[in-house]
Amino acid sequence: MEHILVRSGKREDIPSILNLIKELAAYEKEPNAVVISEEALMNDAFGTDSAFEFIVAEHDGIVVGTAIFYYCYSTWRGKYIYLEDLIVTKQHRRLGIGGKLFEALIKRTRAEGLRQFGWQVLDWNNLAIDFYKKYNATLDESWVNGRLYFNP
Amino acid sequence: MEHILVRSGKREDIPSILNLIKELAAYEKEPNAVVISEEALMNDAFGTDSAFEFIVAEHDGIVVGTAIFYYCYSTWRGKYIYLEDLIVTKQHRRLGIGGKLFEALIKRTRAEGLRQFGWQVLDWNNLAIDFYKKYNATLDESWVNGRLYFNP
Repeated sequence: MEHILVRSGKREDIPSILNLIKELAAYEKEPNAVVISEEALMNDAFGTDSAFEFIVAEHDGIVVGTAIFYYCYSTWRGKYIYLEDLIVTKQHRRLGIGGKLFEALIKRTRAEGLRQFGWQVLDWNNLAIDFYKKYNATLDESWVNGRLYFNP
Repeated sequence: MEHILVRSGKREDIPSILNLIKELAAYEKEPNAVVISEEALMNDAFGTDSAFEFIVAEHDGIVVGTAIFYYCYSTWRGKYIYLEDLIVTKQHRRLGIGGKLFEALIKRTRAEGLRQFGWQVLDWNNLAIDFYKKYNATLDESWVNGRLYFNP
């Protein structure tokens, strides 16, 4: 696929990013789970107390994919990049765009001298699992996600 | 249990924290997984680009437990506190110390108006799972941890 530009996220990408987040939530069978607003995303990405970063894949000036990430900390291996969401919009899937985004973050992990790059994948998402296996990723099913939810 | 003080972590706690991290790794059947150094922990907690925070439980001036945490980001629910490790040293377990540490972070989550508090637990760790169930936590087994490791 030609004319795919991978670049850092910008303020004007936020509406497209929220659409991609909603598209992923629907794909993950949780269409109503997205309670975050465009305003909150804008502030959390570009405010003084930034909570995440993102890169985008652009095709003919349109954002068709994103990788949303931030730094986490392993008490075994130190600081690392955690990929929260890797999303390519439906009509642009299976063209290698996800790979370009994923590899950009691997490159950044290496460039920063970090020992680990991490993410989570749903156990039924075989397309995604096959994608990660191509990178010889370690896929560990032994951890359970614990959560407490609040409605402030 | 009396004389348990829960307080913010300090520089001089780092050697105790590394011992607790190693104790947890051994309990989790990964005794050789801890490659992090005292120096790296010190820098990552108290350096200019801080990557985690911790609180400790102190008994008669000795650190007997810790909760190590940092901020993560859910694209569904926004910024949240993620509990990386909750550790109480073996001879002080089952005395309510873990609960004091865990509840301190729940209190902080609420005080900051966040919508989520998160952690992971190994699927065979029934003692820990029973502990989290007392808080009516959501325990979700459907996510697989993906990792790529590097040795810079």
